[in-house]
Amino acid sequence: MLSEIPDAQAIEATLQSGAKRAVVIGGGYIGLELAEALHSRGLKVVLLESAPQPAGRMLDALYRAEVGAELERGGIEVRTGVKVEGLHVRAGRVTGVQTDAGTVRADLVIVAVGVRPRVELAQLAGVRLGRTGAITTDARMQTNVPAIWAAGDNAESLHRVSRRRVHLPLGLGANRMGRVGGVNMAGGDAKFPGVVGSAVFRVLGLSVARTGLTHEESLALGLDAVSADITSTDHAGYFHDARPIQVRLTAERGTGRLLGAQLLGQGDAVKRVDVVAALLHGRGKLQALAEMDLAYAPPFSGVWDVLLVAAGRLSREIASA
Amino acid sequence: MLSEIPDAQAIEATLQSGAKRAVVIGGGYIGLELAEALHSRGLKVVLLESAPQPAGRMLDALYRAEVGAELERGGIEVRTGVKVEGLHVRAGRVTGVQTDAGTVRADLVIVAVGVRPRVELAQLAGVRLGRTGAITTDARMQTNVPAIWAAGDNAESLHRVSRRRVHLPLGLGANRMGRVGGVNMAGGDAKFPGVVGSAVFRVLGLSVARTGLTHEESLALGLDAVSADITSTDHAGYFHDARPIQVRLTAERGTGRLLGAQLLGQGDAVKRVDVVAALLHGRGKLQALAEMDLAYAPPFSGVWDVLLVAAGRLSREIASA
Repeated sequence: MLSEIPDAQAIEATLQSGAKRAVVIGGGYIGLELAEALHSRGLKVVLLESAPQPAGRMLDALYRAEVGAELERGGIEVRTGVKVEGLHVRAGRVTGVQTDAGTVRADLVIVAVGVRPRVELAQLAGVRLGRTGAITTDARMQTNVPAIWAAGDNAESLHRVSRRRVHLPLGLGANRMGRVGGVNMAGGDAKFPGVVGSAVFRVLGLSVARTGLTHEESLALGLDAVSADITSTDHAGYFHDARPIQVRLTAERGTGRLLGAQLLGQGDAVKRVDVVAALLHGRGKLQALAEMDLAYAPPFSGVWDVLLVAAGRLSREIASA
Repeated sequence: MLSEIPDAQAIEATLQSGAKRAVVIGGGYIGLELAEALHSRGLKVVLLESAPQPAGRMLDALYRAEVGAELERGGIEVRTGVKVEGLHVRAGRVTGVQTDAGTVRADLVIVAVGVRPRVELAQLAGVRLGRTGAITTDARMQTNVPAIWAAGDNAESLHRVSRRRVHLPLGLGANRMGRVGGVNMAGGDAKFPGVVGSAVFRVLGLSVARTGLTHEESLALGLDAVSADITSTDHAGYFHDARPIQVRLTAERGTGRLLGAQLLGQGDAVKRVDVVAALLHGRGKLQALAEMDLAYAPPFSGVWDVLLVAAGRLSREIASA
């Protein structure tokens, strides 16, 4: 797999040439994963983040702080509130990162500051973009230009909780949009049900999951959000393998409507965020399970979680009966 | 805790006195747990089960076979289709179990053949029993006798999938019924929402979970059930810690209504059965999460799963605001 990914080849070549210090710019999913991967290869790693904490767009401040603490505990240096101004290069090789708080030495620099959709070609064809900068489609992934479809990281999704169109370039949604678009382009009729904002990731020994809206996201949308924070154990407390787990659950005051959940713990335990995701979807049929926006990251499941595979298979069996 | 449970004290005393061979009669939750516990204490353990396989009332045949195979792999002898006829006792101590297939030597015998509600007192008071032999109540846990309430292992529950009244003496339901009954007895107004048949257990290295109805249970209820069996991995297949996981998902042909799921794997991964449980409950509000029949066993969660604790806390916060 490595041999087919040019960026991975370049990183590997740089490591082989004796790189000792790495700087990762950006504390999102990709930045966190790369910081950990380089750290595990024995490099001294510094993570630079312009926001006050890493994982800024995924979690509330309370949980962001835990992610930062885990990085520091593991020996990854985190510098937040730092603005990158440029790179120092000597003889064609990077030697450091210039920031508004001084220079950070580096033999290897990773820029992981987010994903922006590539929409130049679409714009030339007259395809309409949404407020997010990604391509707007209907639920069948069709753009405003009848013969043109968009799917994956360049397309918007309907967020079923906020009812807004969002740009969430994650693996499961991209897979699903691609299938829906493909079916429709081939003359079939499929709909993308949208997402509920599920995601899960691991940083060193810490597993973190979220679904729906965070408390901060809810407030930003003008919702009257109220959250409960619970610290407990993932197994019964008297069990030898019980480990701490934290949950923040968010709902709308007045209506009692669930808005989202954030979990923080170790291992598979945080995958129970999917139960909240199921409720956010709010349906009770097989079709709803097949369509569900489950939390995906490689340490926790395949892109198509085994339950989704089962639901898909069963839907087809029923349809073909 | 041991010191407060007479049966546990008696077992411990028997082990201390040098017991080497144990026979466990019954292959349900309790029998499986005790067989494993005694095996881990170094005893030679034989599990006797009258049905063709252990775990008979919890799982479909396909999964029961896996439970039996795991026991055998772990060194616990399983004898199925065996009828127990009596005990051999010498000088006040058991020496063996008489079965219709011969005698099994034993220094210690555990009888774990199921739970039957203790209803003698209730019957004397004129309390009505259900078809299951347990006490019938309304959703407020009130019996047919106005001043008498019943809750826990002696009371029936409404199964939300089959719409039948069932007797499922499991920890979470008992806890919840007790709270509901207590609230109502004290003049409040609470309702027990019923169960969806969730359960999870571990046998040696195997974790097993179920919710809703099994395929066999569905057929017995006259439902036109159809199931899909999927074998996959709990994490992405290329991950070093990916482990096998199996799912059987069952639905009603024609309507597409979800009926249940069974999962078989290792560790917390099978807890994702709760996602199906969420769908079986079929609601989208905070209250629905608080009321959800999540799979409970000590290796996987507390009686009140951390999500339930969070939902309960949040419900109270909203109610008190």
